[in-house]
Amino acid sequence: MEDLENTAPVVAVTMGDPAGIGPEIIAGAWSDFFACDRSDASNAFPLPKTRPFVFGDPEMIERGAKIRGVDVKIQPVSATELPNVAQRYADAAGPGVVPVVPCCSPDVASVEIGKISPEGGDAAFRSLNRAIDLALDGAVDALVTAPLHKESLNLAGHKYPGHTEILAERCGTRDFGMALYLGPCRAIESPTGLGVVHVTLHTSMRKALEDVSTPNVYEKIGLIRRFMTTILDREPRIGVCALNCHAGDGGLFGDEEIRVIAPAVEEARRDGAVVAGPFPSDTLFLDAKNGLYDGIVAIYHDQGHIAVKMLDMFAAVNVALGLPIIRTSVAHGTAFNIAGKGIATTKSLIEAVRVAALFAAKRKTP
Amino acid sequence: MEDLENTAPVVAVTMGDPAGIGPEIIAGAWSDFFACDRSDASNAFPLPKTRPFVFGDPEMIERGAKIRGVDVKIQPVSATELPNVAQRYADAAGPGVVPVVPCCSPDVASVEIGKISPEGGDAAFRSLNRAIDLALDGAVDALVTAPLHKESLNLAGHKYPGHTEILAERCGTRDFGMALYLGPCRAIESPTGLGVVHVTLHTSMRKALEDVSTPNVYEKIGLIRRFMTTILDREPRIGVCALNCHAGDGGLFGDEEIRVIAPAVEEARRDGAVVAGPFPSDTLFLDAKNGLYDGIVAIYHDQGHIAVKMLDMFAAVNVALGLPIIRTSVAHGTAFNIAGKGIATTKSLIEAVRVAALFAAKRKTP
Repeated sequence: MEDLENTAPVVAVTMGDPAGIGPEIIAGAWSDFFACDRSDASNAFPLPKTRPFVFGDPEMIERGAKIRGVDVKIQPVSATELPNVAQRYADAAGPGVVPVVPCCSPDVASVEIGKISPEGGDAAFRSLNRAIDLALDGAVDALVTAPLHKESLNLAGHKYPGHTEILAERCGTRDFGMALYLGPCRAIESPTGLGVVHVTLHTSMRKALEDVSTPNVYEKIGLIRRFMTTILDREPRIGVCALNCHAGDGGLFGDEEIRVIAPAVEEARRDGAVVAGPFPSDTLFLDAKNGLYDGIVAIYHDQGHIAVKMLDMFAAVNVALGLPIIRTSVAHGTAFNIAGKGIATTKSLIEAVRVAALFAAKRKTP
Repeated sequence: MEDLENTAPVVAVTMGDPAGIGPEIIAGAWSDFFACDRSDASNAFPLPKTRPFVFGDPEMIERGAKIRGVDVKIQPVSATELPNVAQRYADAAGPGVVPVVPCCSPDVASVEIGKISPEGGDAAFRSLNRAIDLALDGAVDALVTAPLHKESLNLAGHKYPGHTEILAERCGTRDFGMALYLGPCRAIESPTGLGVVHVTLHTSMRKALEDVSTPNVYEKIGLIRRFMTTILDREPRIGVCALNCHAGDGGLFGDEEIRVIAPAVEEARRDGAVVAGPFPSDTLFLDAKNGLYDGIVAIYHDQGHIAVKMLDMFAAVNVALGLPIIRTSVAHGTAFNIAGKGIATTKSLIEAVRVAALFAAKRKTP
């Protein structure tokens, strides 16, 4: 038992913007990070043990614990001693003790809950960067990020659209992507969850239509194939969405299916992928819900996001693809409107820690 | 009690293509047409009593009953005596007796289950047209259509894309539309269901981008407002989807929200509609699931269809808008792949009959 725990992945959980729900969901979820069962899902897919550490500000996490009404001890951990701390984990932390690596400037104390502020943005930025340092050094095995607020981040002088771009820059990665992963839950039949990769993501629908190309679809089939193969340890069953309704109905409602998407599916099949499509997206996601697919390639943002959010938004996590480090994140934002009330769900954060640990235990990046 | 039944709406259920699941789901659902409770939904929204009649072929409905293993008596009813039959309903039909108005040519006997055939297409066409005759005459109060197969219909020489165009032609209607209505069910919080109208429907995504206009969005807000007002007997809360992801994020991912959709919402609000948006479609449908909206305007086909199918495909029905007669239909197709096996769900058909009866009892067309 002790041996097992001493080899369990060390997962760095970044605090995010302390004006948002980050600190309270970290404190609220803490004891759940140590449970290896999924209360509402199949036991066919057990999860590895985890050694979680928080990167952020001890006072803010303490405030989160008070908001949540949970009885945990906040234990500041010097970053310089962290590699050692990870080794003597069983003594240093547990379901009742939250080790926090202090990363923020003293200004963080002024951050008001639910308010945009440069101090909040800077705290999120510093916490993330300290965690990236240690992930790149190999001192932590995976990163899980609580949400930051884009405006606060920019007010603090850090001009990035979000976490992913900071991570990509720090890792020196140009080709990166994102998977939405819906872990085993009541909403879907598959006991191993469902992964979704998007061909186009944060762009206008007009631009998305320009960006859909055979190489792009082919690349994304490869991404979801690799991602779900790591999770499943077998060849995943992949479905590719059509762009147009009724998959274009033989060319009547658009010909991208025939011209662009079908050739990419054909090429991936020649590589040995178990892949089918393009299919009408509404029926394909219904088949996925019924357990017929392990992974889906969606053509544009809302196609995949409507489906996953309707199924079970808070069982879903974002997983960064193509980085040299493992990083997952919650599928929701800072939720300033409910921050401080102690009512935010911890479900997505718990799932994000578990999925990060899953990849870390396999010693593979997504 | 007898009085109530004698004023209950007469609902014509058309058989659809007998090679598909139509006959077996009609026979299988028969006794449920007479129940006024919803087994898995709120009692806050009781349903009217119904007097259902089948339009099709008695032998085919008999075959459906055998497939399903249900013990009902198939009772052929002469179409000429139908207005009278409707009057003396309590004697003529009931949960154990299925009155069928024979509409088909003798060739229908040759229709094989699961096979495309002109005989199947012609049987569906004749059943529909006979039902339309009597709906236009006022002998039946509403129409519910079981699915037909487009290819069989065309093989029979009836060159229409589907039911709706036949109905529109027979009714002399040019401006018609379609609502998806998800009745009260476990998947959504609202006890009165959720209506969805699409700004564009069966067209390519490229064409959909061209077709989205302020007048078009404004018109669809009006359609869903009228539709849900009839169901609710109060002003519905309407949400309008964005076209682009994140509702364009202030113009960063497209400006249709600012240029086209927002002005339509503003105009409808000036008319007194309770309407908000445009909102990112993934979060708007999540809010609708959580009971914050009664009606949604979706911009393109898959946006609304993914959401409704993920929530509960078989609780959803299609409702024709703008026709002088009431017509609902199942939200699924002929399902040739499972026809004859007796496993097709009857849920959507039951809901279609109930929603048709709901409008008929209010003496309003959707």
